[in-house]
Amino acid sequence: MKLYGYWRSSASYRVRIALALKELEYEYCPVHLLKSGGEQKSSEYVRLNPAKLVPTLELTDPNTGDRLVLNQSLAIIEYLDARFPSHRLIPEDPARAAVVRTLALDMAADLQPIANLRVLQYLTGELGQPDETKVTWITHWVEQAFTAFEARLQHTAGSFCVGDTVSLADVCLIPQVYNAKRFNVDLSAYPRLLTVTEALEALPAFIAAKPENQIDANS
Amino acid sequence: MKLYGYWRSSASYRVRIALALKELEYEYCPVHLLKSGGEQKSSEYVRLNPAKLVPTLELTDPNTGDRLVLNQSLAIIEYLDARFPSHRLIPEDPARAAVVRTLALDMAADLQPIANLRVLQYLTGELGQPDETKVTWITHWVEQAFTAFEARLQHTAGSFCVGDTVSLADVCLIPQVYNAKRFNVDLSAYPRLLTVTEALEALPAFIAAKPENQIDANS
Repeated sequence: MKLYGYWRSSASYRVRIALALKELEYEYCPVHLLKSGGEQKSSEYVRLNPAKLVPTLELTDPNTGDRLVLNQSLAIIEYLDARFPSHRLIPEDPARAAVVRTLALDMAADLQPIANLRVLQYLTGELGQPDETKVTWITHWVEQAFTAFEARLQHTAGSFCVGDTVSLADVCLIPQVYNAKRFNVDLSAYPRLLTVTEALEALPAFIAAKPENQIDANS
Repeated sequence: MKLYGYWRSSASYRVRIALALKELEYEYCPVHLLKSGGEQKSSEYVRLNPAKLVPTLELTDPNTGDRLVLNQSLAIIEYLDARFPSHRLIPEDPARAAVVRTLALDMAADLQPIANLRVLQYLTGELGQPDETKVTWITHWVEQAFTAFEARLQHTAGSFCVGDTVSLADVCLIPQVYNAKRFNVDLSAYPRLLTVTEALEALPAFIAAKPENQIDANS
């Protein structure tokens, strides 16, 4: 298995957490999102992912023997969860799965794509916004998303986002907390979210997947 | 079943298509996203969805008898696909499911959340951008997403996005094509996407789900 990713990319971070929770071995292939105008735009990488985004997971399907090249972090994690069901990240019960996926999408669809690098670059580049707009922008969307997430946790949380089992919701939360802290967003209004975060950050899989612990950290 | 949605909301549109494909009856409850500052922000609606976004599906689980309130269109459709498996929208084979989910997320995560109403309102409101920025912004993100989608279709498409069966990928594509046309984005660079769109738009479920065919159309 080869994971093409970038240390600070939230979507790469999610897949690293999932792989670590499932104790799957992989080769990590850094794709630098800033160097040489962004390595994700190179013709070599675009063959792996025409969306010019990380991550990509390349692997041999254990059942069919087919060589697969998978994009989109949530699609990758759903695949891993079906094929490598040790430590299930999505519950089998459809109603409980919906709760987990809703929290996951709050982070992975309604926050991360709005607040990611290419959007920030477009705001300060093409739209000519000053550099401070990045922080205003991220703070606004984090507040929107975390307020909803905190309200949902009231009904769903145990030790982790949904009960006492680590799920896809936790996998999607932690990279967004990391990002929010990076931009110094005040998180004191989200006590449940912070309690869950603290519990998750102590787990070995979440430590192994941290941006700072990757070979391309600070590059 | 009650679907809370808005005629022009892409996420509501997705769930309407899925419900129509599965021939499930439901009551449509309009939530006007613009009137009175946005009905999705009312205390009544926030009880159904703290994220203040549409859609919400309220239903009784046919297996457990539990009353469920589900948010996030993709989580809702995954639930429906598990509980009402007639016309499966996500293939059972994990590798094929990953292909379908990747295309779905290209639209539902990497395009729609960036180009939706609340982001446009923030750009022209808080950031003080002129009204024309809306079109520039939408055009840019549609081009990014549709270019990748067109490249993927080369490997995946039959009559529809993935082979000859209507899937979650098609359910997520059509609302974004509708939006792109609304903002007059030139789609001539995406011939495969347009061919698939034409085939889908002829299907009764897609016609029934169209914004113009809802009770709150043009309101």
